[in-house]
Amino acid sequence: MSRAGSAVRSSEESGSRAKERIVAAAVELFSERGYHGTGVAEIGARAKVGRGALYHHINSKEELLFRVLSACVDEKLVTAAERTRRSPGTTEEKIGELSRALMTDIVSHRAEWTIYFHDADRLTGDYRKEIQRRRDHYEDIWLDVLAEGKATGEVRDIDPVIVKGILGMHNYSYMWMSSDGRLSAEQVSDVYCELIVRGLIEGR
Amino acid sequence: MSRAGSAVRSSEESGSRAKERIVAAAVELFSERGYHGTGVAEIGARAKVGRGALYHHINSKEELLFRVLSACVDEKLVTAAERTRRSPGTTEEKIGELSRALMTDIVSHRAEWTIYFHDADRLTGDYRKEIQRRRDHYEDIWLDVLAEGKATGEVRDIDPVIVKGILGMHNYSYMWMSSDGRLSAEQVSDVYCELIVRGLIEGR
Repeated sequence: MSRAGSAVRSSEESGSRAKERIVAAAVELFSERGYHGTGVAEIGARAKVGRGALYHHINSKEELLFRVLSACVDEKLVTAAERTRRSPGTTEEKIGELSRALMTDIVSHRAEWTIYFHDADRLTGDYRKEIQRRRDHYEDIWLDVLAEGKATGEVRDIDPVIVKGILGMHNYSYMWMSSDGRLSAEQVSDVYCELIVRGLIEGR
Repeated sequence: MSRAGSAVRSSEESGSRAKERIVAAAVELFSERGYHGTGVAEIGARAKVGRGALYHHINSKEELLFRVLSACVDEKLVTAAERTRRSPGTTEEKIGELSRALMTDIVSHRAEWTIYFHDADRLTGDYRKEIQRRRDHYEDIWLDVLAEGKATGEVRDIDPVIVKGILGMHNYSYMWMSSDGRLSAEQVSDVYCELIVRGLIEGR
């Protein structure tokens, strides 16, 4: 590799590291003080990035909130859920997979989920629409899994509002679950699925 | 009644009305802009109360947050839940009563519950302890109902973490339920109880 190429790569790497530090600082500050309670200057100071570099990497505090919240309902979670939905497994197996993936995501991104439930409604315009679109897409996957299970006779007849309840069971864990708690994310998911499967699946 | 007595009563009444307006303004502003995003002066302006009168009625913004959050986990909800727990009904009936009372409370105090889930962790010291004490007391009632049902053989053996899940199902509804939605609070509670009862009660 030429010297110039190496210099470019090294400059890009340090740029991407600065951006990561800015996003990490925003996660810390938004979750500690709330979105409105955090100033852009404080984020720069926490990330150890000067004002010029800060505005080179971000357009606004709102864009930063969008980036942070993108980690909650990220492509990985939605893509994995789509794969689960299309898999040949039973509805019971699919519910178990969706539940474990969601609970693991919440416990590993607890600060981002805290910010989501505190401050997602501070987003406006396209940022708000994009986060809402992903949330709706994710919720639709659960609705589809239950509707498909109903079509095959696996799932008994119940109002689809139950999906809001199932998501609520999982989502609420951002408030109390910790990675060093009595039960792991997977164990909590197993307990919840005992209830959900018995409540939803015919013959259980 | 003497003139003096009547004057005192009228002054007390207008004082209590001013206080109600201040708390109502705080509910509006905290739920619109968040706790950190709201200044005490804005609360006074929204309540149409001067600075002097404002500080006559409240000690601090934090005290106001405490008063607002007191409406979420109020004595009424906890007292009703205690009455349900002690009633001679079956565990299935008790779950239904607890669920309906909680869901009705959330839909009728949606702004206060929004503030609770956004900003309860802004409380410090005794205010924080008092709200946490009431939440714990309320959660303990659910745990007791399930434990008593287990003792009588009505409830099957399941980890008590399920109570976190059941509360989460209900709590999350502050984010999506409205008083003019497709289903009433009671109907949503009925759907959730279908799942919970089938999931928890032996022989269902």
